Amino acid sequence: MTTLSLIGIGCGDPAQLTRAAIDAINAADLVLIPRKGTAKSDLADLRRSICADVLTNPATRIAEFDLPVRDATEADYRRGVDDWHDAVAATWSQTIADHLGDEGKVALLIWGDPSLYDSSLRIARRLDPLPDIEVVPGITAIQALCAAHTLPLNDIGKPFLVTTGRRLREGGWPHGVDTVVVMLDGGTAFQSLDPDRIHIWWGAYLGMAGQIIMSGALAEIGPRIVATRQEARARHGWIMDSYILKRGS
Amino acid sequence: MTTLSLIGIGCGDPAQLTRAAIDAINAADLVLIPRKGTAKSDLADLRRSICADVLTNPATRIAEFDLPVRDATEADYRRGVDDWHDAVAATWSQTIADHLGDEGKVALLIWGDPSLYDSSLRIARRLDPLPDIEVVPGITAIQALCAAHTLPLNDIGKPFLVTTGRRLREGGWPHGVDTVVVMLDGGTAFQSLDPDRIHIWWGAYLGMAGQIIMSGALAEIGPRIVATRQEARARHGWIMDSYILKRGS
Ligand SMILES: C[S@@+](CC[C@H](N)C(=O)[O-])C[C@H]1O[C@@H](n2cnc3c(N)ncnc32)[C@H](O)[C@@H]1O
Ligand SMILES: C[S@@+](CC[C@H](N)C(=O)[O-])C[C@H]1O[C@@H](n2cnc3c(N)ncnc32)[C@H](O)[C@@H]1O
Repeated sequence: MTTLSLIGIGCGDPAQLTRAAIDAINAADLVLIPRKGTAKSDLADLRRSICADVLTNPATRIAEFDLPVRDATEADYRRGVDDWHDAVAATWSQTIADHLGDEGKVALLIWGDPSLYDSSLRIARRLDPLPDIEVVPGITAIQALCAAHTLPLNDIGKPFLVTTGRRLREGGWPHGVDTVVVMLDGGTAFQSLDPDRIHIWWGAYLGMAGQIIMSGALAEIGPRIVATRQEARARHGWIMDSYILKRGS
Repeated sequence: MTTLSLIGIGCGDPAQLTRAAIDAINAADLVLIPRKGTAKSDLADLRRSICADVLTNPATRIAEFDLPVRDATEADYRRGVDDWHDAVAATWSQTIADHLGDEGKVALLIWGDPSLYDSSLRIARRLDPLPDIEVVPGITAIQALCAAHTLPLNDIGKPFLVTTGRRLREGGWPHGVDTVVVMLDGGTAFQSLDPDRIHIWWGAYLGMAGQIIMSGALAEIGPRIVATRQEARARHGWIMDSYILKRGS
């Protein structure tokens, strides 16, 4: 392989695709689409329909492949992730060898932006031989969340922290910031905080047909978000949500 | 006015425009383009050329206007910003009244993403009568920086802080994070840090013809970035740069 393009496709709304992303998809000889292992087959469908929608290059081929499953029994988390990255890299290599041989341009469609809480760049660095790697930025869940709420992310001249649900739950309100973006929260870590003076802007399935947004004082709206989230998750079978917390004076 | 769309256009590369941004520009009756006050007339030119490039709706009009200048003599910074936001809101209202009347869809092209270190949302909320406000996300300088360096922004499962040059200079390395994104640095605030074990990924004019990127151990590459920045700034007459710092073990 000569080049591997990691192409950010936005986080649900195909209109979030940039012109650079569309060009990069059409410049590829082979587009790889992970079929399973994502649990959320809606997401594989979105990748398929994006390709169907924007591909105008008749020479570009699409190859679907099954992602290996991470070994949840591995006690050492870092090592589990490491082994899994190796296994995914091997799967990419095999799929590329089967469908392309050793010359050409390969593209992967990445949820949101490839540099934000995504492992593709790390996996790509494990490929042997190492391809040229190219990143095409895409709209992130953070931006979709702010846009849906018409919310300025930062206060004027102030910093903000982006973190995970787990960290928030374990560490409490982070030091030195009044704005916190929470991603990768398998639950509702905001419940672990004293809600006093905290506002929340929450969004699930952002940019998708089922988009839900809610905002308000955490004390008041927090319990309603918990209930809404539970109900939506049961109905869809999965949920992807993010939120912004601001601590006021 | 019925609707005001704040449309993120990316931070220099017109290929960063999303399909939603192109649609929103074409859905507008009037596109407002600030002419002066930005000092960087290249940026007004970029907005003009984006319009020329993507506008297919013959009914969409373009109006240029002069931005008021912020009163730098106002001792109270917050108040200076406040007054300036009021003045900009008045200018928008006047330009809209002159070119559109009181009905229609107005668009503003916003550098990067409208929710990241940008005042348009705050200014829009001061308009009287208050329009419906709509935000179209755009690729930010942070994403362009990561993409140019093919750098994963966060470490696995770890948080990151986004802050300003001023805060970094005044507060030192922020508490509790190993990854810091620095924007709005009028100088080279990284020089105020002990460079030991710090890596930097720096980029100027990202996505533009003059793009420069440099990365490495801060101790080694820091002085070269300072020199490169100074030289580039003198040559262009202005500079826009951002950087990511990571503290290693
Ligand atoms: C593995 S990370 C990938 C982030 C992605 N690279 C991006 O740029 O947004 C997945 C997390 O992103 C957030 N997320 C992604 N898509 C989302 C959506 N459509 N609505 C809400 N949150 C979303 C959720 O916090 C989710 O746990
Ligand atoms: C007023 S803020 C606007 C940020 C913008 N809304 C965004 O989403 O990127 C301006 C700062 O953004 C960063 N920036 C914007 N465009 C840039 C570019 N093309 N290259 C490097 N930095 C850029 C710089 O740190 C600059 O000081």
